[in-house]
Amino acid sequence: MAFIKAEIRSGAYYDSVVLMHLQRSLAQQPGILDAGVVMGTDANKDVLAQSDLLVLEAERAGTNDLIIVVKGKDESSVQIALGKVDELIAARRSAGVDEEYHPKSLDSAADRLPAAQWVLVSVPGRYAAGVTRQALGLNKHVFLYSDNVSLKDEIALKQEAARKGLLVMGPDCGTAIVNGVGLGFANKVRRGPIGIVAASGTGLQQVSVRIHQMGGGLTHAFGTGGRDLSDDVQAITTCQGLDLLNRDPDTKVIVLVSKPPSPIVAGELIEAARCVRKPVVVNFIGYSTAMRKIDNVTFVTTFDEAAALAVQLAAIGESEDSVRGFNLGRFSPGQRYLRGLFSGGTLAYEAQLILSNYLPEVYSNAPLTKELRLAESLVSQEHTLIDLGEDEFTVGRLHPMMDNELRIRRLEKEASDPQVAVILLDVVLGFGAHPDPASELALAIAKARKIAEDGGRYLEVVAVVSGTDEDPQDMAAQIQMLAEAGAIVETSNDVAARYVGRLLRALGKIDAGATEHRMTDVDLSALQQPLAAINVGLESFAESLAAQGAEVIQVDWRPAADGNEKLMAILERMKSK
Amino acid sequence: MAFIKAEIRSGAYYDSVVLMHLQRSLAQQPGILDAGVVMGTDANKDVLAQSDLLVLEAERAGTNDLIIVVKGKDESSVQIALGKVDELIAARRSAGVDEEYHPKSLDSAADRLPAAQWVLVSVPGRYAAGVTRQALGLNKHVFLYSDNVSLKDEIALKQEAARKGLLVMGPDCGTAIVNGVGLGFANKVRRGPIGIVAASGTGLQQVSVRIHQMGGGLTHAFGTGGRDLSDDVQAITTCQGLDLLNRDPDTKVIVLVSKPPSPIVAGELIEAARCVRKPVVVNFIGYSTAMRKIDNVTFVTTFDEAAALAVQLAAIGESEDSVRGFNLGRFSPGQRYLRGLFSGGTLAYEAQLILSNYLPEVYSNAPLTKELRLAESLVSQEHTLIDLGEDEFTVGRLHPMMDNELRIRRLEKEASDPQVAVILLDVVLGFGAHPDPASELALAIAKARKIAEDGGRYLEVVAVVSGTDEDPQDMAAQIQMLAEAGAIVETSNDVAARYVGRLLRALGKIDAGATEHRMTDVDLSALQQPLAAINVGLESFAESLAAQGAEVIQVDWRPAADGNEKLMAILERMKSK
Repeated sequence: MAFIKAEIRSGAYYDSVVLMHLQRSLAQQPGILDAGVVMGTDANKDVLAQSDLLVLEAERAGTNDLIIVVKGKDESSVQIALGKVDELIAARRSAGVDEEYHPKSLDSAADRLPAAQWVLVSVPGRYAAGVTRQALGLNKHVFLYSDNVSLKDEIALKQEAARKGLLVMGPDCGTAIVNGVGLGFANKVRRGPIGIVAASGTGLQQVSVRIHQMGGGLTHAFGTGGRDLSDDVQAITTCQGLDLLNRDPDTKVIVLVSKPPSPIVAGELIEAARCVRKPVVVNFIGYSTAMRKIDNVTFVTTFDEAAALAVQLAAIGESEDSVRGFNLGRFSPGQRYLRGLFSGGTLAYEAQLILSNYLPEVYSNAPLTKELRLAESLVSQEHTLIDLGEDEFTVGRLHPMMDNELRIRRLEKEASDPQVAVILLDVVLGFGAHPDPASELALAIAKARKIAEDGGRYLEVVAVVSGTDEDPQDMAAQIQMLAEAGAIVETSNDVAARYVGRLLRALGKIDAGATEHRMTDVDLSALQQPLAAINVGLESFAESLAAQGAEVIQVDWRPAADGNEKLMAILERMKSK
Repeated sequence: MAFIKAEIRSGAYYDSVVLMHLQRSLAQQPGILDAGVVMGTDANKDVLAQSDLLVLEAERAGTNDLIIVVKGKDESSVQIALGKVDELIAARRSAGVDEEYHPKSLDSAADRLPAAQWVLVSVPGRYAAGVTRQALGLNKHVFLYSDNVSLKDEIALKQEAARKGLLVMGPDCGTAIVNGVGLGFANKVRRGPIGIVAASGTGLQQVSVRIHQMGGGLTHAFGTGGRDLSDDVQAITTCQGLDLLNRDPDTKVIVLVSKPPSPIVAGELIEAARCVRKPVVVNFIGYSTAMRKIDNVTFVTTFDEAAALAVQLAAIGESEDSVRGFNLGRFSPGQRYLRGLFSGGTLAYEAQLILSNYLPEVYSNAPLTKELRLAESLVSQEHTLIDLGEDEFTVGRLHPMMDNELRIRRLEKEASDPQVAVILLDVVLGFGAHPDPASELALAIAKARKIAEDGGRYLEVVAVVSGTDEDPQDMAAQIQMLAEAGAIVETSNDVAARYVGRLLRALGKIDAGATEHRMTDVDLSALQQPLAAINVGLESFAESLAAQGAEVIQVDWRPAADGNEKLMAILERMKSK
């Protein structure tokens, strides 16, 4: 029959490494069968209960109480083991301390190692915001490993940091790699041209190790903490990271990793990523997009895909989507809208889908969503894309792939509209289709461009020729006729729609001024110097940094008043006076 | 001052090609400025109004009335032009007819060309279902170009066809390519190993021309009509097409194209596609998926992507996801569940996301959706995947990447559960993590497998080692220890989760019997013979077939009673008696 006894210690602070070793040491004492050493949270009590260690005293313990439970084969073994608790704690504490002097405060640590750009914080959650605030006061970037930090604290800390041009990675940030040195949990990854920003610790680790395994390497990898992409925090750290990697000349490709962010934040981040002049691989794990690729941004769905694509893009070097220069000056003020005149229904649908990534609304008689339905199919409004092959137009009338009549009439009308900047149309070749559509459409295009020109405007006409070189119409001749009429001709609907989207987006941006920058840029040079850091909390993090050759200083941190909440509150009030 | 006059012809049938030519001929008569020849639908009246041709008589015309409007510079020119209408119609009709004899009915056409496997139907919508029914009665596959066919007719026709092992492509099916011959609107595309099934005419065309432009080629391409993937029609034709291409030995890769199908139909189609033993490229344009790839099925978002991937996969030849053979006999009856014990939060999340494609529900303390939240984090239910790094477990306790205690206890407990078949766990290496996690976990894994073995069961343990060969733990040695303890070891979370998913899916399928086949298989040989067809409707389709070297016979079709609805109804009643 086993004997179990618990001891409760109220309001005292112990490092979790110390607690782990205490538990293991107790379990190894003579006559002892099992031991539990945990803070008195409900979850921890459940764990004790699972191991049949939750005796009554333990059940009564509060969240900030330390529970020490020992199960032995008899009462005396248990009493002897419990009697050794202080001795075991003291033994571990001295074992963990090397011969060096450890400053007791962040201030004195900063004095001793002024080169330190970073403070690593891994103290228990309730103390972590305070330590982080101190670090920001000393103008240090913070790697905030601690979890159980309030959302309110997170927002306040990140806003303050952003104003000062500092990074707060976290709270609950497990991983980062800065200038080749891993902070917290981090793998030894080859240096290379890929940068990572991740609101996910093990996501960052898995992507970085897969990049390494695939032969690639990293510049920097920034963790942000899992809540950074919430509506409340508004991706402050993620935006800073993206901006840093954009400015970093060694980074050629950026990977962005997160669990699904809020839709609003996701939209803003994608906008931010599109402003980056480098390929960006986005893995919002579990986030669905209707388009795999928008300009320089490619969406992937797993860590493996993210790693593989990043390595591939880094090998290619240049972004394939370097934005073409548009001659926007040719357009008159007021010219801003698209009119799409399609004969192919699904071509029209795909074009709308692609354009939805560039233009706020595209109206249609066959729209993506019912809100975008044209009031009247024959009357365009703002950006409009018409499917002339819809049933409504084909009662007793040939399909527009055979009969260009309706399209030609509409083209002329749209060209007369002074707000129209671009006409997009498809020309479908092949058996069954009009034997020579370009001959009729080229005339109409030339006439439309003349109408605009006579009105003092420039009209861009983009034609998608869908066909093969074996089609009966002679595709090359069809393309030539359309090009001679002044149209830009593509053979891919995808390429044509994206071109039109980028052009209209550029036109639309002329008026919108530059948005103001509320943050101070993080100084890139701080990331490029050899990493030096101050560690507050888990000593193993300092040991890891030292093992990687980084300068590091460990603070022999204890909570004020040894964690006694009442005393701490009094001290805090005295300080603020 | 222009003069406009309209003539209305009630209840008569005219081919749309005839109407197009009538309009053009009228517009070319002396003194004529513009002409309109349309059926009296509201949409067509709007079009007339746009061109200032909608005079009062035209406005009063009914849907089945033919409107002929002529605008001339004076009354006499208009009168003369209108006087020529019958002559112009007759001229076109004789021009369109070659010297050959044209049978007046489908039956006699079938007698004359018994090799015809196909009937192309492009008569006006209101007659199309009747002609299709006749064709099915003659055991012919149908290419149904006509639009404006009712949903009810579509369902009835497709169900009848499926019972008889016949295809009905359409209604509103613009395109197909069968054994190298294009039906309807189709491009001349190189022969090759790619098959297409598309609920989208121009989608099919654009994908097929892009495949050709990229150097690839097609076996067959089946159109289905745009409504095939609705809940009502339940993808009858799409399923037939998928099944045919699966059985076709020449097809190596299948592309499936559609606008977004209903979620239910999408789910069923993806299931069907996963049963195909070939790579399937799915482009449900505008449909969002959280995973880019599930087994042999890859989701793409544009026609270009679909074409590029299909060409690439066809070049590779074999599917990369050939299903591993599982030794399912090792498991005991009743063993069916997964228990995942993760230290990495986002690894746990990605694993759940991947597994959601294989297992109906995976419960977690950090679930994909709140419905899947475990009632108690410490008590597993059915398939369960736990994130032991969640805040609830780390108050005053080291993270499970440093401290294996909780995981080891849980592992033992799960191994004792007779319903558990697979344990999945991650082992994260790197700085900051446990210096030698495998030494502790390998012991625990060996013990867990022994527990199962002692209970007469087989326990599969899969470990993801996340690390690099430069990490301080010596990754190769860590992997070896885990493998020696009997674990299957992967370095990719993606690969590990998919392996576990496939295994558990296979285990779950042992009991579920084969589903019954309600359809008759379409005979593959019909597609492999030289194409021969009967054409009812647009003569240009017959001309195209002939130009491609196919045997074709044109039916000189007219609606019964020349389209007079009352007479038709009487005739129909007489027939059915």
